[in-house]
Amino acid sequence: MTSSLATAQRSLADPAVRHPLWPPLTAGCPVTSTDEVAYPLDVDYDYARVPAGLFTDPLPPGAAHGLDRWAPLLPPLASPGLGEGGTPLVRLADGVYVKDESRNPTWSHKDRLNRVAVGAAKAAGAQGIAVSSSGNHGASAAAYAARAGLPCVVFASPYAPPAVASFVRAYGAAVLTVPFEATRSLMRRMVTELGYQPVSNLTDSAHTGHPFGPEGYKTLAYELFLDLGRVPAAVYLPTGYGELLFGVTKGFRELVTLGLADSVPRVYACEPAARGPLAAAVRTGRPAAHVEFAPTDAYAIGCTVGSYRGVVALRDSGGAALTVTDEQMAAARDELAAQGLWYELSSAAGLAALRAHGSAADADGPVVCVATSSGFKDLATARRDVAHELMAGDWDSVLTALKAAGHA
Amino acid sequence: MTSSLATAQRSLADPAVRHPLWPPLTAGCPVTSTDEVAYPLDVDYDYARVPAGLFTDPLPPGAAHGLDRWAPLLPPLASPGLGEGGTPLVRLADGVYVKDESRNPTWSHKDRLNRVAVGAAKAAGAQGIAVSSSGNHGASAAAYAARAGLPCVVFASPYAPPAVASFVRAYGAAVLTVPFEATRSLMRRMVTELGYQPVSNLTDSAHTGHPFGPEGYKTLAYELFLDLGRVPAAVYLPTGYGELLFGVTKGFRELVTLGLADSVPRVYACEPAARGPLAAAVRTGRPAAHVEFAPTDAYAIGCTVGSYRGVVALRDSGGAALTVTDEQMAAARDELAAQGLWYELSSAAGLAALRAHGSAADADGPVVCVATSSGFKDLATARRDVAHELMAGDWDSVLTALKAAGHA
Repeated sequence: MTSSLATAQRSLADPAVRHPLWPPLTAGCPVTSTDEVAYPLDVDYDYARVPAGLFTDPLPPGAAHGLDRWAPLLPPLASPGLGEGGTPLVRLADGVYVKDESRNPTWSHKDRLNRVAVGAAKAAGAQGIAVSSSGNHGASAAAYAARAGLPCVVFASPYAPPAVASFVRAYGAAVLTVPFEATRSLMRRMVTELGYQPVSNLTDSAHTGHPFGPEGYKTLAYELFLDLGRVPAAVYLPTGYGELLFGVTKGFRELVTLGLADSVPRVYACEPAARGPLAAAVRTGRPAAHVEFAPTDAYAIGCTVGSYRGVVALRDSGGAALTVTDEQMAAARDELAAQGLWYELSSAAGLAALRAHGSAADADGPVVCVATSSGFKDLATARRDVAHELMAGDWDSVLTALKAAGHA
Repeated sequence: MTSSLATAQRSLADPAVRHPLWPPLTAGCPVTSTDEVAYPLDVDYDYARVPAGLFTDPLPPGAAHGLDRWAPLLPPLASPGLGEGGTPLVRLADGVYVKDESRNPTWSHKDRLNRVAVGAAKAAGAQGIAVSSSGNHGASAAAYAARAGLPCVVFASPYAPPAVASFVRAYGAAVLTVPFEATRSLMRRMVTELGYQPVSNLTDSAHTGHPFGPEGYKTLAYELFLDLGRVPAAVYLPTGYGELLFGVTKGFRELVTLGLADSVPRVYACEPAARGPLAAAVRTGRPAAHVEFAPTDAYAIGCTVGSYRGVVALRDSGGAALTVTDEQMAAARDELAAQGLWYELSSAAGLAALRAHGSAADADGPVVCVATSSGFKDLATARRDVAHELMAGDWDSVLTALKAAGHA
């Protein structure tokens, strides 16, 4: 099997500015960053050496899961996986496809990122993994750190959903609930003083994140290409900091580079209308934007700061920054549940944006909405007040209850 | 694509007693059942007509998920799937394999059963789906009923975990919490008076269940065979009523029938020591046993009544009925979480039994533990008291907390 063909890190602000592949520049590009924006790094590859059959050879048994299959187009995977990726594409009654990322090892898309970023930490000899998250990302980082034999520290919010708090702790991570405004400074000290590698953002000026993280998300584009037998016409993605958006777009761009596809599909960023830093950056023509805090229940993607990655992804794909209200997300979540697919509110942002803003231009091919995580992660899920009252066990009581519930 | 080759229902008590394939005999065999035991039905196929390449032809894109691939060896699948099955096999550090069934559409193995049983209800013209469950089975039935466009009634316990209560309701099922002792009688009236099809047990004498349900579980054996390139040496299965046990064993038996494998692996039933109706049946030589209620936290497999299916499966595979304490399951659950895999307590029964009772005879090939469902389903998961206390945000407080947590 061909190992990683990754060659270097390049600044997203100026691809001519190259840095060695190691160490991952987790505080952004030291050359091109400004006071306003810490520019993220991108990973470059020796594309000419990608094995000819990587996308076309039949898979050996058991290879349908795990990012290992894509090793040539990823940074070195220095720790074992958990069978991440290889998630199903479910066709709704009206023909729209849902890419079900709740079918990952910790039941969200974040496992694609953490397989790669935690692997990089292992390869770089990090003493542990540090992450700031109150949700899917923290749990996923904790699981991959456990798998890699590295300690993990999660800086969490006291407002994390109760189920998620159990979840992150289960993998043995130390969960430290600190004031939000202290988080990034503490993350930086974990790096500088204890030698931990961060798998979430370190920078104050704009979101930078781990330079290798979005590489894991590329595999979602590869899978869509293989499952559909072509690139889709459009992809709708729940968008927080834009790492998924950037990674998926880059994956499609690579398919064009490799001569496998003719064009990059339109990739739409779908943000909560209450925040929407990427929409704000696009509107004002800036590389990244800060927006005011405003309430949304879509906690997994409710960001007040954006990343230049998102702007680059929309430019490369001809997509757009769409926003959706909590009510639109709730309607999309309910539409999905009524077809047997239960997601957290944030996960329904893709379908919500398609329903609210879907373009006729999408009709020239398959349309995919990515659903990122299960309904278990939502704040309201574990509320005791949804538990059931004991009713009488006679048949007439059952018939009355069924009528009240709208059955027959 | 070859459609279903199912031909008939046969009594497990006497395979010579055959019934037509339709309707599914959900109250057991009307000919061979006794006052002591309602004997379950088994499904027969025209094995001579199974396509030669079913297990060996390369899959078309996207076909890695969904039971549709196995249509010839299943009853007719009359309603659409959700991409069930095709779950990964994760190798632990010591070489033991974990079949991760939490990676199904409703995050448990039950989706394999419900794809088939709800499809049968649709094919039979049922007015709806009725199920008695406080956990994975109810949620899965609700999801597949939604997907099939059928109403669903779930008779639940007031002791269901809060997260599971949200979960079942999300799919639009009517959840009726009735006294436990009324459930089966109400289930029967749903069938006889409202034309609903049951996907859980109707009979008082012993567990019978839906005759088509275990057929869905056969696919787990097919996948193990393909992923390992051979049948494993031994499979350890969390066991409640024995439907998974019977289905997996039947799948291996069919591989022998089809000339693909030489023998059926040892399949071990792993029950909570507090109950263990299958172990009791084996010990006393009876076709099924009732045991006293005794407390266990393994609520998903804590049954007081067994099924003849389990006895048949152990006879066919040369396996054994093993029991494990809650403490052994908790240790196995923690062992799995420490490698990045978080399951509910019941799901760890397989690994717990391997660790407690694993036989040297297993060493002649791969050993597989099936993990059935995610940690989100457990009673303790959503407890508010695991939420985090806000701590101070200075570096010294972080160092103190990390030391207390055993880091650095």
